[in-house]
Amino acid sequence: MASLTPSCCLFLLCTWLGVSLVCPQITYETYYFDQKIDHFGFYEDSTFKQRYLVCDSHWKTPNGPILFYTGNEGDITLFSNNTGFMWDVAEELRAMLVFAEHRYYGESMPFGNLSYSEPKYLNYLTSEQALADFAVLIRFFKESGDAKHSPVIAIGGSYGGMLAAWLRMKYPHVVVGALAASAPVWQFENLVPCNLYYQIVTNDFKKSGAGCAESVTKSWAAINRMGETDDGIKWLSLAFHLCSPLKGKEDVTAMKSWLIETWVNLAMVDYPYPASFLEPLPAWPIKEVCKHLRNPKLEDKALLQNIFEAINVYYNYTGDTSCLNISQNAVGSLGDLGWSYQACTEMVMPVCADGVTDMFEPQTWDFDSYSDDCYKLWGVRPRKSWITSQYGGRNISAASNILFSNGDLDPWSAGGVKQSLSDSLVAILISDGAHHLDLRSNNAYDPKSVIQARALEVAYMKKWIKQYGEQSHVQGV
Amino acid sequence: MASLTPSCCLFLLCTWLGVSLVCPQITYETYYFDQKIDHFGFYEDSTFKQRYLVCDSHWKTPNGPILFYTGNEGDITLFSNNTGFMWDVAEELRAMLVFAEHRYYGESMPFGNLSYSEPKYLNYLTSEQALADFAVLIRFFKESGDAKHSPVIAIGGSYGGMLAAWLRMKYPHVVVGALAASAPVWQFENLVPCNLYYQIVTNDFKKSGAGCAESVTKSWAAINRMGETDDGIKWLSLAFHLCSPLKGKEDVTAMKSWLIETWVNLAMVDYPYPASFLEPLPAWPIKEVCKHLRNPKLEDKALLQNIFEAINVYYNYTGDTSCLNISQNAVGSLGDLGWSYQACTEMVMPVCADGVTDMFEPQTWDFDSYSDDCYKLWGVRPRKSWITSQYGGRNISAASNILFSNGDLDPWSAGGVKQSLSDSLVAILISDGAHHLDLRSNNAYDPKSVIQARALEVAYMKKWIKQYGEQSHVQGV
Repeated sequence: MASLTPSCCLFLLCTWLGVSLVCPQITYETYYFDQKIDHFGFYEDSTFKQRYLVCDSHWKTPNGPILFYTGNEGDITLFSNNTGFMWDVAEELRAMLVFAEHRYYGESMPFGNLSYSEPKYLNYLTSEQALADFAVLIRFFKESGDAKHSPVIAIGGSYGGMLAAWLRMKYPHVVVGALAASAPVWQFENLVPCNLYYQIVTNDFKKSGAGCAESVTKSWAAINRMGETDDGIKWLSLAFHLCSPLKGKEDVTAMKSWLIETWVNLAMVDYPYPASFLEPLPAWPIKEVCKHLRNPKLEDKALLQNIFEAINVYYNYTGDTSCLNISQNAVGSLGDLGWSYQACTEMVMPVCADGVTDMFEPQTWDFDSYSDDCYKLWGVRPRKSWITSQYGGRNISAASNILFSNGDLDPWSAGGVKQSLSDSLVAILISDGAHHLDLRSNNAYDPKSVIQARALEVAYMKKWIKQYGEQSHVQGV
Repeated sequence: MASLTPSCCLFLLCTWLGVSLVCPQITYETYYFDQKIDHFGFYEDSTFKQRYLVCDSHWKTPNGPILFYTGNEGDITLFSNNTGFMWDVAEELRAMLVFAEHRYYGESMPFGNLSYSEPKYLNYLTSEQALADFAVLIRFFKESGDAKHSPVIAIGGSYGGMLAAWLRMKYPHVVVGALAASAPVWQFENLVPCNLYYQIVTNDFKKSGAGCAESVTKSWAAINRMGETDDGIKWLSLAFHLCSPLKGKEDVTAMKSWLIETWVNLAMVDYPYPASFLEPLPAWPIKEVCKHLRNPKLEDKALLQNIFEAINVYYNYTGDTSCLNISQNAVGSLGDLGWSYQACTEMVMPVCADGVTDMFEPQTWDFDSYSDDCYKLWGVRPRKSWITSQYGGRNISAASNILFSNGDLDPWSAGGVKQSLSDSLVAILISDGAHHLDLRSNNAYDPKSVIQARALEVAYMKKWIKQYGEQSHVQGV
């Protein structure tokens, strides 16, 4: 396969190594594969174009491996551009890189512009269909061209990490192993305590500056008091430079949700160097945020003024943002609409807060009201037990060759596998690591933990590749 | 759970052991479970009643196992009544027996009487949906009542055996192992030669009587010659005591298909004692058939007269049948309609004949015309590569704890796993065994091979049960 050089990628993957700006030659070609819209039924027999990106410049036939990114909820270029790890190890592993886009995201729309228009068109947005897409695409790779003898390794982060793990569990004949980075495969039902998630966020703030978490804790009551009067609501809109002024108490509630999401996202991307995964941010962004939140004992307006300055680190690090929009999704380029549907169907991940062990207002997990909200929003109801019935919950010891990596700063590590379950179901813990830090490019500011994690990941991959070679030799495949 | 005594079962499970008629006390209770019609999508959110049968009279809590029959294409009572093995071993294993009906068969109709009326209603008749039914039902068992500590073992024969194996592959968290009896998991694409199936049928006839297979071989040309004239066609209708006279050449072709199916079914049920699985038959029915087919050198009418007598063994062993019906399905109580749909969607199993190594007319495997026929019949097109993409084809070595048993008389053994793939993917060969003979009740006429096979199967089950107990102890589950 020939190669193109998309300029977007060159820019995003440049990283500072010591004093040098290193820009690995990242080139890929874009392809489209005809996938069945419905793998699990025959009444809807149409196909759609699934986008995937391929870089084979380091690939050595006849048995160089394929590193296959199991695309998650977003445009696949977002993940190819933020998974520097794969680009970094391609040469050493003599690997082809493939980034497969998840259906209903980016350009991979089963019903074109209609895909999100009605529940009947959204019906094929499930993890099972996505895994089947990957399995069928990998088979196509193995049967066409020179990849017949190439072992395939699934790699993904976050939901993509869940997909990588599940692909190995459900389709072990297509991938020899999986790296599931920051994959909260156990954030379902009651597999983990629902308040762990917010506790981790809180701990990140606690250790990033004195008074920081406490300031956030106090902010909710302050906002509530302001929200009791029209003047207070007006003040909030001005103080937070909101693009659309709050119109009443409901908007104040929405503003609080937006703040919660922002604190959570900061915890996810608390990387040790400047990065632009969700938003452009400085190194250790929570530390920057906490510089504004040193005094939790201020009176309401002064405290909330500081909260605004803190939030501004997240939304306006570049200084280009003239106003803040609480209805804008907090995660920039991710496909929030699709994820909202997935969360309202399969991906029911209970979270709760108690306001004591965490810095948030108490918030119970109420499935019934969650379900009602989903029905209003999407016309479908979530099934809270389905994911564990399908993928096994905690009982996954029959699987093999899966690496579960988790960083301790990452709220999603709450639902991660943090203890090895067997010799080949291996937990890798990354201290000072945020959301799938290990999947990012090498960086001079990487903590030692992530350097070790990546080395271990590569060692396991080499082991799987070797095993595959030995097995193929025996079987004459 | 209390127990009822349905008289149907008592009758059917009586077997001759030496000179005594042994009638094990078979009692079960019938239940219905609310299953989602569509496990893999959220737009169709309705449920249907899945029937299942339970016998817990030998079950010992808290950790007696559950033997779970993964129902295949038919009324579940057919399988509970013909899987004496489970009833025979229940006491020794202190096991609960569960027989779960496959959706779209028996009473388990997702859309009631409409289920087979339109392609849109048939859309949920797939193996994946059936496996999900089983997984969800087993979870219900484990979470309600006293079965929390009970390991579950999947057992099935034929397509039910495929489902048992696939259930263990795809849902290893719900079943600790599987007995896949006579499961042609490799009768797909080009995993095995397509002519092996008819070769096995032919060998059964060859070794059951001199001149037998050769008589069948010669019968096709004789029928063709008769079919060339109106008088000949009339003669065929009379000679074969057909309920509806043949009306032309097309009907002659249909008659040949019906004969092929009959020979194949005889090979499937060539049991060493009288049995009534597909039709009531004598012991070693092919030997009975072959008594009529000793002279292949007869002229056409005499040869075909013998063919009729032979066929009559299959359709009229009881002597109650006044005429033969070539449009009647040859397999009595099986759900042919549903299987026809499944064969036209997922279950694309290539078979072919060459007329040289087998006793049939040459018949190539032509997927395109097969697909066209399916489209005419059901409005859907089969996907020939899907099953191997989904279930791994020959590359299933990542799975564990599956027994693949096959009898050498059984045409379906052509697509079976006949060599062990690992320590825990074990092939069990049963010489002189027809279609899932091992799943039938103990019988004084059982060949030694099947007695050994059953003993091995029980030994493996005990091993899995023990492993589960040890694991539960470690995990504190």
